Amino acid sequence: MDDLPISPTEPRGSPSPGKEQQAAGVGILLQIMMLVLSFVLGHVLRRKKFYYLPEASASLLIGLIVGGLANISDTETSIRAWFNFHEEFFFLFLLPPIIFQSGFSLSPKPFFSNFGAIVTFAIVGTFIASTVTGILVYLGGLIYLMYRLPFLECMMFGALISATDPVTVLSIFQELGSDMNLYALVFGESVLNDAMAISLYRTISLIKSHVPSEQNFFMVIVKFLETFVGSMSSGVGVGFTAALLFKYAGLDIDNLLNLECCLFVLFPYFSYMLAEGLGLSGIVSILFTGIVMKHYTFSNLSENSQRFVSAFFHLISSLAETFVFIYMGFDIAMEQHSWSHVGFIFFSILFIIVARAANVFSCAYMVNLIRPAHRQIPLKHQKALWYSGLRGAMAFALALQSVHDLPEGHGQTIFTATTAIVVLTVLLIGGSTGTMLEALQVVGDGHDGPIGESFEVNNGYISPPYDEEESSGNRLKMRLKEFHKNTATFRALDKNYLTPFFTTQTGDDEEQEDFGEAASSSRRASFHG
Amino acid sequence: MDDLPISPTEPRGSPSPGKEQQAAGVGILLQIMMLVLSFVLGHVLRRKKFYYLPEASASLLIGLIVGGLANISDTETSIRAWFNFHEEFFFLFLLPPIIFQSGFSLSPKPFFSNFGAIVTFAIVGTFIASTVTGILVYLGGLIYLMYRLPFLECMMFGALISATDPVTVLSIFQELGSDMNLYALVFGESVLNDAMAISLYRTISLIKSHVPSEQNFFMVIVKFLETFVGSMSSGVGVGFTAALLFKYAGLDIDNLLNLECCLFVLFPYFSYMLAEGLGLSGIVSILFTGIVMKHYTFSNLSENSQRFVSAFFHLISSLAETFVFIYMGFDIAMEQHSWSHVGFIFFSILFIIVARAANVFSCAYMVNLIRPAHRQIPLKHQKALWYSGLRGAMAFALALQSVHDLPEGHGQTIFTATTAIVVLTVLLIGGSTGTMLEALQVVGDGHDGPIGESFEVNNGYISPPYDEEESSGNRLKMRLKEFHKNTATFRALDKNYLTPFFTTQTGDDEEQEDFGEAASSSRRASFHG
Repeated sequence: MDDLPISPTEPRGSPSPGKEQQAAGVGILLQIMMLVLSFVLGHVLRRKKFYYLPEASASLLIGLIVGGLANISDTETSIRAWFNFHEEFFFLFLLPPIIFQSGFSLSPKPFFSNFGAIVTFAIVGTFIASTVTGILVYLGGLIYLMYRLPFLECMMFGALISATDPVTVLSIFQELGSDMNLYALVFGESVLNDAMAISLYRTISLIKSHVPSEQNFFMVIVKFLETFVGSMSSGVGVGFTAALLFKYAGLDIDNLLNLECCLFVLFPYFSYMLAEGLGLSGIVSILFTGIVMKHYTFSNLSENSQRFVSAFFHLISSLAETFVFIYMGFDIAMEQHSWSHVGFIFFSILFIIVARAANVFSCAYMVNLIRPAHRQIPLKHQKALWYSGLRGAMAFALALQSVHDLPEGHGQTIFTATTAIVVLTVLLIGGSTGTMLEALQVVGDGHDGPIGESFEVNNGYISPPYDEEESSGNRLKMRLKEFHKNTATFRALDKNYLTPFFTTQTGDDEEQEDFGEAASSSRRASFHG
Repeated sequence: MDDLPISPTEPRGSPSPGKEQQAAGVGILLQIMMLVLSFVLGHVLRRKKFYYLPEASASLLIGLIVGGLANISDTETSIRAWFNFHEEFFFLFLLPPIIFQSGFSLSPKPFFSNFGAIVTFAIVGTFIASTVTGILVYLGGLIYLMYRLPFLECMMFGALISATDPVTVLSIFQELGSDMNLYALVFGESVLNDAMAISLYRTISLIKSHVPSEQNFFMVIVKFLETFVGSMSSGVGVGFTAALLFKYAGLDIDNLLNLECCLFVLFPYFSYMLAEGLGLSGIVSILFTGIVMKHYTFSNLSENSQRFVSAFFHLISSLAETFVFIYMGFDIAMEQHSWSHVGFIFFSILFIIVARAANVFSCAYMVNLIRPAHRQIPLKHQKALWYSGLRGAMAFALALQSVHDLPEGHGQTIFTATTAIVVLTVLLIGGSTGTMLEALQVVGDGHDGPIGESFEVNNGYISPPYDEEESSGNRLKMRLKEFHKNTATFRALDKNYLTPFFTTQTGDDEEQEDFGEAASSSRRASFHG
């Protein structure tokens, strides 16, 4: 089972193939052992309800420790080569399953009802955060507070460090069963802002390298929107194509299970690569493919295949998630760092906290201006959102790229700072998110159950408590009607046209009602199936 | 789902990361499309009972055609880079799942009752075949019949071209439901002779490069035996360790399905890499891990996990198998060939036919000398075995390696000849194996059913037809008793010690009887589960 692929670094004509293969064997062997250790350790910690060291932190620590040991001992370079973090490998093979599983296990209701807010946080917010960070770092350099970088490099650093990580936050929120809307906000923002951060980083890098631009501010926004809409469309398109294929191919008979699953499993990857091949964002595309495939394609599968693919994607994404943190930890321990700029690290941490505050609170203010009173984002949710800004593999991968993109000392400084920020945020924020969520009282009612359980309960600010808000009666009612009409329109479209067209279901009411629940409980379904 | 890993070729510091990633996207996209096409085409052909173009041949043809088109059109080199056949990628990521699935879906009875014969064919036979081929090619060169190569290079060619391919033969035999003993012979030989061929190739390559050796004939055999026994032990050891882990870890409760499957899925790969890391043969190791994990570890899993892992390994190995042929086809169309030596190709095809005959008939003679009369390998089985000598990905990968190992023109000639042999044998033998099996009347009684079905029926020369052979009564009976005692000993050991120790089963009789059937019907179980 080739579920643990690692890109070999050796060129084609290596002098002694047997030796090379042996080194590869040892390298991969170590990685598998760390994976097994992480899974076992994570299981034990979870069973003991020890939330201060989530699985991601544990994996990162294991990677750091083993990497440190390998660094001290005289490990052969051919074995080491297997542990270098390859950005390409991360982007092409580790990220897709993680993001797809996010979309596939997503309950679409809270995500879409918060879609406006999520997009605001992801686009405007990330832009604010990266600009604020960039400018602060530049100013800090000007007044000799920290290592001085050119303006555009500061902006690049700002962009890459604004990519928050979905993996850790996701797992902690799921573990604790937090408020559904908060979860949708945090998760949606962290997935989409990755796309924004990459787009920003690449655009600035392009500006820096040759293009003399005057409309760069506007250009960045337009380019991002273009990329976003394009990626979303291609992702949705692939999902719908898959739905039609499975509806009409007649593969849901018993002895074709393998063929059915093979094809189903290839579609998400197809979507990711299609978007990348078109120069769009694979992440956004595969996310929406996941959502659409869950909603429409999934129900066209035979029952056995449904059980299998749910478990399959869960398995593959768990492996990829755990591996990302081990891989990162190991590489951090192995890479050369320039620790001479401790000031740079310290102040950049300070600045990203400020920048994240600017992002979250200003965007929340904007969203609250537009939203009706009962749907305001409460302050405690804003605080939770501010707090959940972990930096993870995405920032790390981009920083690693910057080492090659920027002149000698500069890229190294950015890389070291990013590394320090990633380790600190994953360990500190990851370990304390549980405490924070409880302190802010945003943990769901279904404490032990998975998120789907507490969905109906926490649906609070979607279907508002009528008895509380009597004062702003008329305006509120109008808005409410409008909101319900909009929701109703999509539901009607879905029920009358999309579901009958793309699936074998008749789209009756019961089906419709069950859907939210069915989607959110997919994780459980895959367990109990 | 990172089940389609391809090793990136670009070094770490590529100048424009966006562009590189786009090229990778296009490359992988094409590969996924070819995979989907192969699956769909294979399905249609199978449904129409068109056995002249098995799935493997279809995949190879698709790869060849698309590769040819890419060659004619002006495809960018950065996209092409994704299609180059990397031996390392093949050995580390594509081969393990295929071989593991072979072991995992194997019915152990016919395999072990033919174990002596299989080992004879694999070790002695492959040695004979490669020596005969090598000497004939050398002599052919001496008398100016074909391109002249030094003696050791001829021997290397002989070794690499003696590796027969398990994939295609396996699928055709399974499709047609052939005789169980013949299947065990063909399959066992082709899996084990890969290990022998690699070992031979590497040993001769080592001799050629520096070691001045006088005992090379003896050394090769000793080294192979060492490797074989070592690999087998390590594979069996890993399997038993896994069995104990799953027996005592208590993971077979419902909500730990994911953890259980993650760990189960990592073990085979662990076994492969352990053997490679120790300088042994990963193929042999993972094969035996598959057999042991199926027999002992598998029954310690929860029922849901059993269903899942069966389907999982089947899926992954199907993807890997199909991909190998596409990948090979594409690379054959893209590589530079030296077609100037058509004579070399023609005569080497002739020679490998002769060499395979020398291998099969002499080994069968030896085996028949030792075996009792009722267990003789019939001539028609020998012919079928002779005919099934397809050359596949293993020979191709080793030939590709020889391009780097040998001086300019020599490696190229060997590579081109191997390529031609692979394409011809896969298309011709693959397409006609069905006809041949029917002509030789070795197709199982359960024509349409899978192999397990016809097991009891074809058990013919294991539990012999008493009424036929009355003449050699006394000696025969003694031998029979002995044979039954041996079988009984292993079964008793298995029942009284191994099964109770390594599994949660009590090892009662019913369990024991069911086992052969259960193992051989695993494929069906995964379908109907």
